Amino acid sequence: MPLSRAISAPLAVVILAGGGGTRLWPRSRKSLPKQLIDIVIPGRTMLQMTAERISPGLVAANSVFVITGEQYAGSVREQMPDVPPQNVVGEPMPRDSAPAMAFMAALIEHRLGSNAIMIALPSDHDIRDVEAFHNCLLAAAFASEQGYLVTLGIVPGAPDSGFGYIQRGESMHTGSVPAFHVKSFREKPDHATARGYLASGEYYWNAGMYIGRAGTFRELYKRYLPEMEPHLEELIAAHGTEHQASTMARQFPQLTKISFDFAIAEKAAADGRVAVVPAQIGWSDVGSWNRLAELLEEQADEHGNIAVSGAGAPAHRLIDTRGTMVHAPHKLVATLGLDDVVIIDTPDAILIAAKDRAEDVKKIVESLQQEGRLELL
Amino acid sequence: MPLSRAISAPLAVVILAGGGGTRLWPRSRKSLPKQLIDIVIPGRTMLQMTAERISPGLVAANSVFVITGEQYAGSVREQMPDVPPQNVVGEPMPRDSAPAMAFMAALIEHRLGSNAIMIALPSDHDIRDVEAFHNCLLAAAFASEQGYLVTLGIVPGAPDSGFGYIQRGESMHTGSVPAFHVKSFREKPDHATARGYLASGEYYWNAGMYIGRAGTFRELYKRYLPEMEPHLEELIAAHGTEHQASTMARQFPQLTKISFDFAIAEKAAADGRVAVVPAQIGWSDVGSWNRLAELLEEQADEHGNIAVSGAGAPAHRLIDTRGTMVHAPHKLVATLGLDDVVIIDTPDAILIAAKDRAEDVKKIVESLQQEGRLELL
Repeated sequence: MPLSRAISAPLAVVILAGGGGTRLWPRSRKSLPKQLIDIVIPGRTMLQMTAERISPGLVAANSVFVITGEQYAGSVREQMPDVPPQNVVGEPMPRDSAPAMAFMAALIEHRLGSNAIMIALPSDHDIRDVEAFHNCLLAAAFASEQGYLVTLGIVPGAPDSGFGYIQRGESMHTGSVPAFHVKSFREKPDHATARGYLASGEYYWNAGMYIGRAGTFRELYKRYLPEMEPHLEELIAAHGTEHQASTMARQFPQLTKISFDFAIAEKAAADGRVAVVPAQIGWSDVGSWNRLAELLEEQADEHGNIAVSGAGAPAHRLIDTRGTMVHAPHKLVATLGLDDVVIIDTPDAILIAAKDRAEDVKKIVESLQQEGRLELL
Repeated sequence: MPLSRAISAPLAVVILAGGGGTRLWPRSRKSLPKQLIDIVIPGRTMLQMTAERISPGLVAANSVFVITGEQYAGSVREQMPDVPPQNVVGEPMPRDSAPAMAFMAALIEHRLGSNAIMIALPSDHDIRDVEAFHNCLLAAAFASEQGYLVTLGIVPGAPDSGFGYIQRGESMHTGSVPAFHVKSFREKPDHATARGYLASGEYYWNAGMYIGRAGTFRELYKRYLPEMEPHLEELIAAHGTEHQASTMARQFPQLTKISFDFAIAEKAAADGRVAVVPAQIGWSDVGSWNRLAELLEEQADEHGNIAVSGAGAPAHRLIDTRGTMVHAPHKLVATLGLDDVVIIDTPDAILIAAKDRAEDVKKIVESLQQEGRLELL
């Protein structure tokens, strides 16, 4: 029996689109963060790619919800014309992931009932094997019907110290797609620890994907963040009414600013309530220009160069250049004698970085911030 | 007695502004070549710097003449408002330096007489020691009054195989500033030969600066390029009349396309008619981005970086970057972990080159030419 047939409860996907990272500067900006721009495929934003991955294949567009910053809600609605506008919720201020997921769980319970399964996904990751991803989500949905909070654990390809890790416990013996109890969540380790994690085979990368019945989320919130309840009740009562905006503006700032991992998932794991489905799905967080270059490796020419130019623009000239990624849709880039460099051009700023230093782009953003050059952030 | 007092003949400076090189691409373009843009000092073009170096210090503005491409004549007049507009001659097509200097010598003879001393100078070089330069020019003018064609020979600082060389002969015993007979002109040598030249102490770099009486130039042209004479006569007769443009358009294409070095200077040297004044004047041909970086070394920060940004724009962010030159007045350049790179930004193209490869920018220009991307040339 296919897993999808085993799920009778309604599925709802919640796309978490609140972030505003600095690691893909200068393309990603405060005013237009990573999830709202086309990073991996020209013309498709990360958000659109996330949505296409789950709808219509997994759920209908009216079962897709998005929570994002209020200032981005308009762009989100434009980018997702099939999703009902009222499914896009704008937060008046960033309060980290716990409040966002609390509100969405309450909203989905209100709309679809406690048994509806909420699948919460980041909006700015890349997943290459969509079929495997769906199988993992359905296995997770199956486990969530047994009352678990379920996460997908990315099977690590390297001892990366840039991710949080999930430590698995006993097998749940669920059938074709395996699942395990979660023993603990671990913060980003040092490199030696990460090597140990990899060697043990017991650890997965935490990609921030959570699946559970709306009722399970609600129950866990009531247990671990009970102080949020009265605010959530007011927010849900006002949602869809003329008081929605004013209630959001009043209540949202009072929600505890904390991450879901820290406030809920870790505690629930300690109480034996979390399961993990190991996921080999071609996942990447596209967390830096360097990671993007790895991701696009198949597009590289025979010298390992990846060059994106504008439509109709002349091809970039990469002479005696190797292992270099160029993203410059607005002007011609000509290079001579470069090795392993990342070149990212935008109308008002260009990044030129040694590939192995691309993660340090935050230093540039910090120095611009310190100098008050807000127009470039 | 100062040299200037020893010169009774009128002096006229001819600035040769016809060139359109590719070595400073992407800033230098067909439509706006090196001499018409600000390369060394923001806001002052190479042509303006050339003019300021000789006027009013050496000659009055109405004794400054310019020969340039017809398409650049308007820009030249705008950049040199003190020079009488009729002193700026536009060539209807590039015919190399021999025709340009032939015409200017004939024009100066016609206007100021055979004894007037013509000082012909490239428009796109940098000279740091203007006083030494003037002393050299006056010594050259003094020698030219004795009927010589005189050139300034740049005392070489390195065995550079990118220049032509001038081999000196016997001393002319001219007094405070030495001068020598010229034995021969040599084309660009290979590196071993250049090392031998440097070691001998007998060779100078040929910077294309020529000084002589208008009558001497005319005499040498009549001897070595006699076929030019009837065309020159027609050009001079029509100059300043209503027929000037049509006569230029008809006669100029018939002038032999050849360089002054090859057609006149080499032959005159073989006939013992050329003198050289050794010049230690802080000269640079600013012939590549790499040479410009050397020239601007005194502006470098403690990491050897030279960064030019736009007025009022944020300073470029060069993090863990050494020996790198950035010229980008229109946008922020942020670098991470680069060594010895040249970054030249323009509105439609950016060059990013390893410093020791900057001379190969012509490869880029050639590839654009082959692809018919004329808008970028």
